[in-house]
Amino acid sequence: MKNRSTAILIVIGNEILSGRTVDSNVAYLAKKLSSAGIAMKRVHMIADDEAMIISTVQASSAEVDYVFTTGGIGPTHDDITAVSIAKAFGVPLVLHSEAKALLKQHYGEHLNESRLRMGYVPEGANLVANPVSVAPGFQMRNVYIMAGVPIIAHAMIDMVVPTLLGGVPWTTKTIRTSLPESIIAKDLSRIQEDYPEIEIGSYPYFKLGGYGLSLVVKGSDANLVDEASDKIEAMISRLGGESWSDEDI
Amino acid sequence: MKNRSTAILIVIGNEILSGRTVDSNVAYLAKKLSSAGIAMKRVHMIADDEAMIISTVQASSAEVDYVFTTGGIGPTHDDITAVSIAKAFGVPLVLHSEAKALLKQHYGEHLNESRLRMGYVPEGANLVANPVSVAPGFQMRNVYIMAGVPIIAHAMIDMVVPTLLGGVPWTTKTIRTSLPESIIAKDLSRIQEDYPEIEIGSYPYFKLGGYGLSLVVKGSDANLVDEASDKIEAMISRLGGESWSDEDI
Repeated sequence: MKNRSTAILIVIGNEILSGRTVDSNVAYLAKKLSSAGIAMKRVHMIADDEAMIISTVQASSAEVDYVFTTGGIGPTHDDITAVSIAKAFGVPLVLHSEAKALLKQHYGEHLNESRLRMGYVPEGANLVANPVSVAPGFQMRNVYIMAGVPIIAHAMIDMVVPTLLGGVPWTTKTIRTSLPESIIAKDLSRIQEDYPEIEIGSYPYFKLGGYGLSLVVKGSDANLVDEASDKIEAMISRLGGESWSDEDI
Repeated sequence: MKNRSTAILIVIGNEILSGRTVDSNVAYLAKKLSSAGIAMKRVHMIADDEAMIISTVQASSAEVDYVFTTGGIGPTHDDITAVSIAKAFGVPLVLHSEAKALLKQHYGEHLNESRLRMGYVPEGANLVANPVSVAPGFQMRNVYIMAGVPIIAHAMIDMVVPTLLGGVPWTTKTIRTSLPESIIAKDLSRIQEDYPEIEIGSYPYFKLGGYGLSLVVKGSDANLVDEASDKIEAMISRLGGESWSDEDI
């Protein structure tokens, strides 16, 4: 199998861990990375805790090609992401001249100390534009620091991901059936063995109207994905089931 | 302030990291733990990857009081959670006699090799009841292994979290019926009002053969749980339905 670039997302925020806020950035980033041929290796959701941010960022930055963080870059006392990233890389936090100019232009005479705080980044960081509100994200080495608010995070993801070096985008096919997993498990596992380069996932779901099963076939070689998908459809039909396929994602 | 217990959730599944599936278990568990006075310290989302599951489970089990996992306990080749947990604790994977009995009772002569696979747990594990479909979760030391499908995960969370309070162990009864929720909702809510100390959960499910409803009755007073359960059974019969109860696990 061809090597893909890898990524880790670090979701920073007590409100996620208390259940008060439901994250919607994981799935958004995951999909964008998938289409760019970059594999999301893992996601960490952690608290607004400096020591935890520092250790998680250091480990992640060494583990994969690209690291993303969401959350904690606003103007209040609990927004500690920038200072934690600076400490993680052992550099001082400095006022970025471009960021200062952006904030000045936006707030005019209302630019106060708290707002100016959003212009501080670790020394050596580049800005990531914020097309929604004004406070920028930033890039420090292989770590991209983004806002937590979904509309801003999604906009930043849309700016950053196309600039990353990906691999070959994967082809994906989804085959649905109403046969239960336990009926097809054995034959499906044989097909997986016959196509080690292809990844076959099995996902049962419940919805109004009954039970369903999605079989997701993925790989960098579109022909092999087609072949394995055909085998799965033939297997379902042989076991007395019907199958239908989703539009490729 | 009294020290709070701490927890970590490990979300296992390639479909989460590819963005195909949007997780809804993090927020659900986080809220339940919050109300129970348990702090969720972090969440890991990782792939269906044995080495990654083993190292994450080992580190988490040592780090906090309670660890939860979701995903990867079905009958197909990509369901590798049980075997990974066994390896994480250095014990063999064995067929649990109660789980086998449940599967046998549920599938009868249709119990095949793949289905029986769902009865295997690490040696020394206790079962966690599955009020929705039949395959149980399990508890190994301080790690609770649950399904990924939200309707099942949420039901398992509802069963497990009240037992973590450390004080009085809760009694649980599960009553099943094929009456729809909309028929019993009003009377059920009256029973709930009559028994404020008891928690009654209602979980509709779909399986081969049609619709079903599990009513889960829980509380610290076993007599009250019995009383409320009797009322529910009488109510179902009065409304023209049949009911049967699961063996308590």
